[in-house]
Amino acid sequence: MNIDRYLAESKGSVDQALDRLLPPETEEPATIHRAMRYSVFAGGKRVRPILVLAAGESVGGARETLLHLGCAVEMLHTYSLIHDDLRRGVPTCHKVFGEAMAILAGDALLTRCYQLLGELPSVPGGDATRLALVRELARATGTTNGMIGGQVVDLESEGKPIGAATLEYIHRSKTGALLSACTRTGGLASGASARQMEALDHYGRNVGLMFQIVDDILDVTGNSADLGKTAGKDQKVKKATYPALYGLEASRAKARALSLAAIRAVEPLGEAAATLCSLAQFIHTRTT
Amino acid sequence: MNIDRYLAESKGSVDQALDRLLPPETEEPATIHRAMRYSVFAGGKRVRPILVLAAGESVGGARETLLHLGCAVEMLHTYSLIHDDLRRGVPTCHKVFGEAMAILAGDALLTRCYQLLGELPSVPGGDATRLALVRELARATGTTNGMIGGQVVDLESEGKPIGAATLEYIHRSKTGALLSACTRTGGLASGASARQMEALDHYGRNVGLMFQIVDDILDVTGNSADLGKTAGKDQKVKKATYPALYGLEASRAKARALSLAAIRAVEPLGEAAATLCSLAQFIHTRTT
Repeated sequence: MNIDRYLAESKGSVDQALDRLLPPETEEPATIHRAMRYSVFAGGKRVRPILVLAAGESVGGARETLLHLGCAVEMLHTYSLIHDDLRRGVPTCHKVFGEAMAILAGDALLTRCYQLLGELPSVPGGDATRLALVRELARATGTTNGMIGGQVVDLESEGKPIGAATLEYIHRSKTGALLSACTRTGGLASGASARQMEALDHYGRNVGLMFQIVDDILDVTGNSADLGKTAGKDQKVKKATYPALYGLEASRAKARALSLAAIRAVEPLGEAAATLCSLAQFIHTRTT
Repeated sequence: MNIDRYLAESKGSVDQALDRLLPPETEEPATIHRAMRYSVFAGGKRVRPILVLAAGESVGGARETLLHLGCAVEMLHTYSLIHDDLRRGVPTCHKVFGEAMAILAGDALLTRCYQLLGELPSVPGGDATRLALVRELARATGTTNGMIGGQVVDLESEGKPIGAATLEYIHRSKTGALLSACTRTGGLASGASARQMEALDHYGRNVGLMFQIVDDILDVTGNSADLGKTAGKDQKVKKATYPALYGLEASRAKARALSLAAIRAVEPLGEAAATLCSLAQFIHTRTT
């Protein structure tokens, strides 16, 4: 399997599904639907839905269900970007639609995610599974070790010296929790066994932290086009990062170790995990 | 049943349950949990959870389950107030904790609601019912005929002349949808029959619109203490209201008609609906 082709094809499928699962722009009130679509189609790489797909398919999940679930997860990711950008003054949704509409667009995507989980198509275990997905994603994006918790600690740490434990908390919670929820929910929605769930969980945790460390490294070494954000931005706002705390070489070694650990974690899944392995390598070597 | 005592006792139970179902202030990251609690315990009358309780108990629902559900609904209401106050410049959560934390506190309450629905205690129909509650509340607070839709049209209508149809859309969506979801979800969580659900649905729709019309009337006639907000505020921002569009007398007549319609709607429930009837009268005659 060529990973570039897999990524391109999967992104195409995700984009089509997102288009189908978001209210049309013509539906009233049109402004909010335009704002939601503006942000969802602002150029995301769809890393999270693709992780859902790859994790679910590695244990025999159904593509339609996984696409639907992946879109719900992508809406959570997009809502967090819109609300995060508001406080950081990044010119996205709110520069086009105004701050009030941007807050509402984030709220609407967050709400839409749970509506979609409630309407998830055929899934092993039926409503018990759909509800487990609701709990899993609410936990991953909540205040205790979840995305919002990570954003809070990140916000409170800006401009302050922070230690290794705090940095790890921010990374694991702010981006890691939702990333590892991708592989867990992909498994749950595919009727994964306890042993398979454990493999996907370990894989997701490793990839989740590695993703953020690579992001930190790219902020130091990359150029803005590769990164999809302004390089050097973290240093400018005195943000704590892995390279700032451990140096570039140690950060690269940590990313490499996490990538290998992720690949080892899914060994029990055998050949079916080939895509997950390529995906870990891809996320690891993005542009470093 | 003395309605004042019922309201006081129910509010006490709801407040206790909210305290139990929100993360403790001591749990890290503490700031977000303090911000959530600050807003939830800022003096709400708990109209929505009390509607959930009264509707559910009229069809034999279990109090523990209904309290849990009512708290989830109150968190949705509180999140909407925090985010709404941000755009209207009302000095609440964000004046104490800052705008960034206020956005996160709203997001966290919204997220917590779905986590609580996922963990709802014993309920007739089990997970299928819990999932129906997720769908019902996501719909009621969403963009299409839901709370966010109402806020969007309200936002876009400020300072503009609007017609009767738009005003009705705003009222029915912005506040009515969640209020009528209270009686519907109270019924669903209590295993209500189709006939009972129909009665609760009609009751909730009438009370939902009536609530907002009375609010509009109080803005013209009431004093700020009664209203829990600054009287005359709507006129100041040139907000479209029932009295502005129809006059005070016609608005009072409409509220009266809706109150009577609500009471008639629950006649099929017999004696068990006594509390719902008192509640409709209470909401109708608050201070007018």
